[in-house]
Order: sequence, then C-alpha cells, then structure tokens
Amino acid sequence: MSTAVQPHFKHHKNEEAINTVCSKLSERFGDRFTMGKALREQHAHTTTGLQNEMPDGVVFAQSTEEVSEIVALCNEQCVPVIAFGSGSSLEGQLNAPYGGISVDLSGMNAILEVCAEDLNCTVQAGVTRKQLNDYLRDTGLFFPIDPGADASLGGMAATRASGTNAVRYGTMKDNVLSLKAVMADGTIIETASKAKKSSAGYDLTRLLVGSEGTLGIITEVSLKLSGIPQAISGGICGFPDLESACNAVIMTIQCGIPVARIELLDSLQVKAVNLHSKLGLEERPTLLVEFHGTDSGVAEQAELFADIIEEFGGSDFEWATKPEDRTRLWTARHESYWATFSLRPGAKSVSSDACVPISQLAECVRETQKDIEATGFLAPIVGHVGDGNFHVQLLLDPENPEEHAKADAFLGRLAERAIAMGGTCTGEHGVGQGKMKYMTKEFGPALSYMIAIKEAFDPKNIMNPGKILPEHG
Amino acid sequence: MSTAVQPHFKHHKNEEAINTVCSKLSERFGDRFTMGKALREQHAHTTTGLQNEMPDGVVFAQSTEEVSEIVALCNEQCVPVIAFGSGSSLEGQLNAPYGGISVDLSGMNAILEVCAEDLNCTVQAGVTRKQLNDYLRDTGLFFPIDPGADASLGGMAATRASGTNAVRYGTMKDNVLSLKAVMADGTIIETASKAKKSSAGYDLTRLLVGSEGTLGIITEVSLKLSGIPQAISGGICGFPDLESACNAVIMTIQCGIPVARIELLDSLQVKAVNLHSKLGLEERPTLLVEFHGTDSGVAEQAELFADIIEEFGGSDFEWATKPEDRTRLWTARHESYWATFSLRPGAKSVSSDACVPISQLAECVRETQKDIEATGFLAPIVGHVGDGNFHVQLLLDPENPEEHAKADAFLGRLAERAIAMGGTCTGEHGVGQGKMKYMTKEFGPALSYMIAIKEAFDPKNIMNPGKILPEHG
Repeated sequence: MSTAVQPHFKHHKNEEAINTVCSKLSERFGDRFTMGKALREQHAHTTTGLQNEMPDGVVFAQSTEEVSEIVALCNEQCVPVIAFGSGSSLEGQLNAPYGGISVDLSGMNAILEVCAEDLNCTVQAGVTRKQLNDYLRDTGLFFPIDPGADASLGGMAATRASGTNAVRYGTMKDNVLSLKAVMADGTIIETASKAKKSSAGYDLTRLLVGSEGTLGIITEVSLKLSGIPQAISGGICGFPDLESACNAVIMTIQCGIPVARIELLDSLQVKAVNLHSKLGLEERPTLLVEFHGTDSGVAEQAELFADIIEEFGGSDFEWATKPEDRTRLWTARHESYWATFSLRPGAKSVSSDACVPISQLAECVRETQKDIEATGFLAPIVGHVGDGNFHVQLLLDPENPEEHAKADAFLGRLAERAIAMGGTCTGEHGVGQGKMKYMTKEFGPALSYMIAIKEAFDPKNIMNPGKILPEHG
Repeated sequence: MSTAVQPHFKHHKNEEAINTVCSKLSERFGDRFTMGKALREQHAHTTTGLQNEMPDGVVFAQSTEEVSEIVALCNEQCVPVIAFGSGSSLEGQLNAPYGGISVDLSGMNAILEVCAEDLNCTVQAGVTRKQLNDYLRDTGLFFPIDPGADASLGGMAATRASGTNAVRYGTMKDNVLSLKAVMADGTIIETASKAKKSSAGYDLTRLLVGSEGTLGIITEVSLKLSGIPQAISGGICGFPDLESACNAVIMTIQCGIPVARIELLDSLQVKAVNLHSKLGLEERPTLLVEFHGTDSGVAEQAELFADIIEEFGGSDFEWATKPEDRTRLWTARHESYWATFSLRPGAKSVSSDACVPISQLAECVRETQKDIEATGFLAPIVGHVGDGNFHVQLLLDPENPEEHAKADAFLGRLAERAIAMGGTCTGEHGVGQGKMKYMTKEFGPALSYMIAIKEAFDPKNIMNPGKILPEHG
C-alpha cells in the first residue's frame, strides 16, 4: 500500500533525434513545416509569468491521418509533441521545456456535421467556438461553453475549459459527447459513440478531456448543442461589500434559480472596466447576471433574484433587456482581462484561478483580498461565482524580480487556501506547468494513478511532457 | 500503430491461495466472513440468462480501512475481489467466474455529510438511493438518479447507472462529485475535491464511475443534490403506433422542453402493466411524462407538450396532478420489470438495453420490434426514450435451451443494430459479463487503452476479473 507518490519520470532531450525528426518533417510537409523563430516563439505563447520555451519546429497539420503520421515519427524518435489550437491557454500548456514539435491544428477547422435532430455536432479540433456559433446561427442551436477567448474547441476539450455559462450549461466535461484522438504511437481512436448516454466501458472521453495533450492529441470533437433560449435577459447590481455579493450568489444557487451566468467583479475590477470600456459604473462589488428561458420563465427567475439581492443589500437591479446593452455589459466582462492593464499600464499580468465549494466562497474571496492588501499588489478579482470559481489577476512590474517572487508565493497561498477549503487549485485554467507543484497536495495518493495512466498510454513520455504531473529524474 | 486489439489476460484461479485468504479472513473477521453456500449464491445473484458463478467467501465490511485490508490481502495472494452493494446489477457484474471474495458493502450505510449550502452530500457506498432520499426529505433537496431498483449508491456509481430522470438530471457520471476508493494494492484514494468544477489533472472520478469494480472498490460517494421542484405534474397519453410516439419524443427534446421523465411503453408492456397493476390502460404505444419546475414553468412545459402530441396523433393527455395518481402511474412503470412476468408466468426474464442517437430511435425500435416478431418472442419494449435509450425484456422458457440460444442471437443483433446506428450496446445496464463480446465492435482500437488502464491499475487482475474487457489466455 503506497501513500507516497512517485513522481513521473522526466523526458530527456535528445538533440540528434530532434534533428532527424525536423528534417523528415521538412521533407514530408514542405512549407507546412517551419523552424523559424517567430513562429516557434508564438507557438509557445504563454500569458503567465512563465518563461517562453520554444519548440524546435512547428508543423501545420490538415488531417487526423497527418497528425498520426507526425506523432508516430516523434514516438519512434522519442521527441516531444505539443498540440496547438489557438494559443489561449493560461498555464504554460504550450511551452516546450524539452523542445520537440508543435503540431498546429488551426488549419483543421472544418465543421464536419451538425445534427439538429440529435442536438449535436462534430468538428475538427481547430474550429473555434465563435466560428461554430456563427455557423449554427440559423439552426436555433448554439454551443454554450464560453471561456472568453475565442479558443479552439480541441483546446477547450484538452483543458476542460468552462467560463461564464458553466453554472447553467456545465463545462467541456459535460458537453463533449465523444472525441477522435491520436495516441502516443500514432493510433487513432474514437472514445465513444454518439449516444447521449452509455454505460459501456471506461470513460475515455472524460479521461482525455482535461489531459492537456499529455495522453493524446484531440483531432475531432463531438459536442452537445443547446437550443438558443427564447428569451434572454439580465443586468447588473452593486453590493456594499464582497461578502454580501457572494452571499447573494450562494442564495441564488441554493434557491435553484437556473441562472445562465452570474459573475462577480470586485471594486478594482469595476474601476478597470470603467477605464477600459467607459461604462461609468459605481466602483463597488458588482454582480453581472443573465437569465435564459421562455419569456415567462425569465421573468420569474428575475423576480426571485430581485428578492434575493434586496435581502443582501444590493442596489436596484439595472436591467439590460436590449441586446445591445447586454452585449456592452458582457463585452466589458469578457474584456476584463485586458481592462485590468488600464490600472497599471506597462504591467505584466499573471492570472490565476481557484474554485471552492460555494459555501466557502465568501471566506475564500475575503481571505484572498486580505492577502492582496497585505502584499500590496494591484490585483482585481473577478469570477464565475455561481460555481465557486474566481480569478485573481496580478499586475506586476515586468522588470522587478522581487515582485514576481512575491507573486509566486501569493499564488501558492491562493492554491493552498482553496485546497484547504475543500476546493481545487484550478477551476478552469488547467495545470500546465504553472500548477504542477500543487498536484501532490490536491490529490495525494490519487496522483499515482494519474501517473500510471500517463506511463501506460505514453511510455516514452513524448506527449506534451513536463505538464500536469510532477516530475523527477 | 496497432489497430488490432490485444485482449486482456485472463485471471488464473489458484485454489491454494483462495484457501489461504479464506482462512485469514475467517480469523480476522469472525462472523462477518462466511463460506455458506446460500450467501455465496445470493452474492453472485444475476437477473440475466447468465449462469450463477459463486465467490468462495463473502466478507461484510464496515469501513474503507477494512476494505483496504481485505483487498491488500487478496492482492498479495492473487485472489479475485468482487464488490457487492445491493445485488441489483443486470449483466452478471457480481458473478465470480474465477472464484474469490465478495466484499459486501451493504453495512457501510452511513450518510456522512449533507451540505445543503453546497447542494451535495457524502455517503458510504452501501447507502441506497431510497435511504438517502428519505433522509433528505426535510432539506428540500433530493438525489434524482432513479434506476428503478433501490440500488446502493456505490453500485450505481460503479455501473454508471441512470434511469427515468436522466433525461433531465443526467446519469451518475454527471452527479458524482468525488469518490473514495480502494485500489488493487489496498491504497485508498480520493479522486477529486468537492468543488463544483475543476480542471486539475485527469478525471479519475469519471474513470471509476462505470468501471464496475474492475479498477477499484468505491467505498464513499460524494453526490450533487437537486432542489425538490416546487411543482411536479405529468400524465399519460397513447399513440396509434410506436413511430408516432418516438417522433413525439424527438420533437419534445428538440424543442428544448426540459421534461423530467419521458418513458415509452409498447402495447405489450401496457398489457403487462394492466395485468400486474390493474390500471385499465388502452393497450397501445404509450408515453408517461413528468414535468418539474415552478407552477407556471410546469404549466408552460405541459402546454408545449400537448401541442406536440396532438401533431403526432397522440390521444388526449390524461393528467395525473394528484400525487397519488402520479405515484400509481410511476409505480406501475417501475414495476414493469416484474409486471412482464404476468404475460408468461414461470418464464425467465432476460433484459437488455441499448441506446442510440435520438434521431435513430424510431428506426431502431421499429427494427427491433420486427426482429421480435420474426423470432416469435414475447418481449415488451420500454424505455427512457428522451435519451434514445430503450429496454427489451425477453420472456423465456427456463427449460428450453433452444429459446435461450435464439435469445442470445437476438441480443447480439440488438447490440449490433444500436452500434451500427451510432449508438451503444448498453445505455445503463453496464457491460459485466453479458456485453463483453460487443466491446471490440463498439470501441475498436480505443479498447486497447481501456485494457492498458486495467493492467496499470490492477497488474494481477484481481479486481472483478472477467468483466467489461474481452479476455484471452
């Protein structure tokens, strides 16, 4: 009975093998393979404080069969393979600490099938969520998961993305029906049928969702779709303090109001949004809310919600019934990441998220805010609070290593605080490189079984090595 | 690149090791270990046409630590371990083809925590769904998954159970937050935090859900709870033919009516229910429907549904607004399994299920009915048709091997028909022994990765061997 976790073995870089792979890929793919520095750098793009670690080459794949060919070659030569979708991941998932080949899937952007009768579709991994929703516009259906960025659907599956709508529609875990993936030796698999439910065998779909390219490269995604609601309404209201806002959210969820989005912005975030989007909102803890349903259903939800905010000292709810007003508010929310830079122009942003049981939300946010005050950071808080999920965005001086060291320590305390409250070190950004160090604390002996799966699926450790699993050797 | 699946290696029975384990368990657990034939037979209980294959001993565990001790001993001696909850599985999941120890978890029936604020609870694996719902009665919450039988929640997680409510509330996959489990060497793991969502690491929760005790023994289950709806209403309506009933269901789902249950009974099943429960229903394809929501929400859903059934030639909808009428109808539905015996007293029932994309439902049911007619079986069809899931219950002469052989062939055609239509050989009964033979067809090369996980987690193949994965050797 082992309780101590044996870390995963480290990949060892082999320059000669990398050269062999690069020359073979160049021969096979011509222009679609590059070793140019700009593209390599862009393909290791990371929006964190992590250092950019470039791959040795980038290949633009056009089919599952091509991905299979590339991965099989890399496996034969023991060279790392990193899948690239749209480059919007946040925890260094695209870095290549041991070099290797970035497989760019953005050209695999065909919508293969939309089955309105079954409320599902199948797309290539490079299709982005906006592209899919544009395509669906006339069908009365939409794909609800919205992480903010116009991410690729393959990438969203690989990182188990969620976002503002998750409180109502779930995360990628809940909305992927089935996947096509290329495994470490080049084998192509389909994880499941298109049936809405199944009790046949191990759930390989959910195993690949969130595996960040470390177990296989997702090349096709079958997704559940939702009906565009007959009515959408929503708006905004302010609270005297963060705790009242959090408690209003908790009560909303407990009352079973099927709110489609419920987002918290702290005072500093409201200030940033005002600066960026010229909204003129009062600078206090604020909830942005949206209801989906039938006309009468939405009215009913809104009425119940209004009672709740009154109870918690919220301001009068300002309705945004016109689509353009709603779009303006949600655009401001979606741009909150960029808006924060208005608070400290020239700063580097380091964004982190945590997720706790909703009963712990108010306390976790309050403790985190105290910690921000104590460290003297400029760091707005914003979050998908209906799920107990919130983000902290630290604005750091890029030239000041001391600030970065303090930030690292702060992020460690944030992760440990969430874990200690029965939560997780990441609600939706994934582990990548940035959160590997918290995995042992969060999972304990269960981590050994993740490592066992990794070693069984990818014995040479070529699939996005140096991510998710703590390493040794 | 391997596309041919290497089957999983077979467990080899070792009588001496079994004797060693039995004498150690007897010494350690006294009265709580038995080798009596009646109990051993009952613990391999199967409601299929499969032969009863008894374990060598049954041990009644009272804690996770005890389960760990038992499994570690069995692993050391290379003796099979089969977890037992309430014995209601349908595909021979509890059989012991290589002997070994049945670990009875029914005594682990404590409700450990209910957190109303977080809409979740943690229970020991032996707690049954009725026990949990009785306990929750005063909290305004309930656990919605309802497979019919009063199954244990550990068993429901292990078989990825679902049932009548799944169309609205999902299956066990969607409602398990986290699991505590004992792995093959006795290691105790917790698969996840209690956060509502997480993107940290591989989804071990979903991997264990549906693994039927072949990867680990689930000892504690943390579950999402739902609010008891303010209003429930529903009723029943008949259709001129099966296809119209199926098409009404398809349209209901497409229109996004959040129906809580929508069940199809074919004419023969209605006849059986009439005989058993004295309902006096007209013997034609019939839908039983239930709506959950607010008063006005339920009324709105019902109105939309009434329009749909009219379009498909359904009879006037008979409302069952009084709780006692509703209970009578749903009790009849739940007892449909037992009711079918009224059609052929003394018969043996062999029940199977399949699940297809809903667009294929009408055709799959029609083809299956044709097949039933051609073979001359007495076999009612009933199903959770909102998910594309239906059951066929064959009534066979227990003394007629020819009928059983014909039934086997029929079940093979049913599974292959569902798979060919993009569906699965089992929507909710699981694989067990009964459906192992269809796994290669359903999963192709993906099956190799299930076998790789099994071999990594359970290198000696002691965890419920001879289930789910096709074997060789």
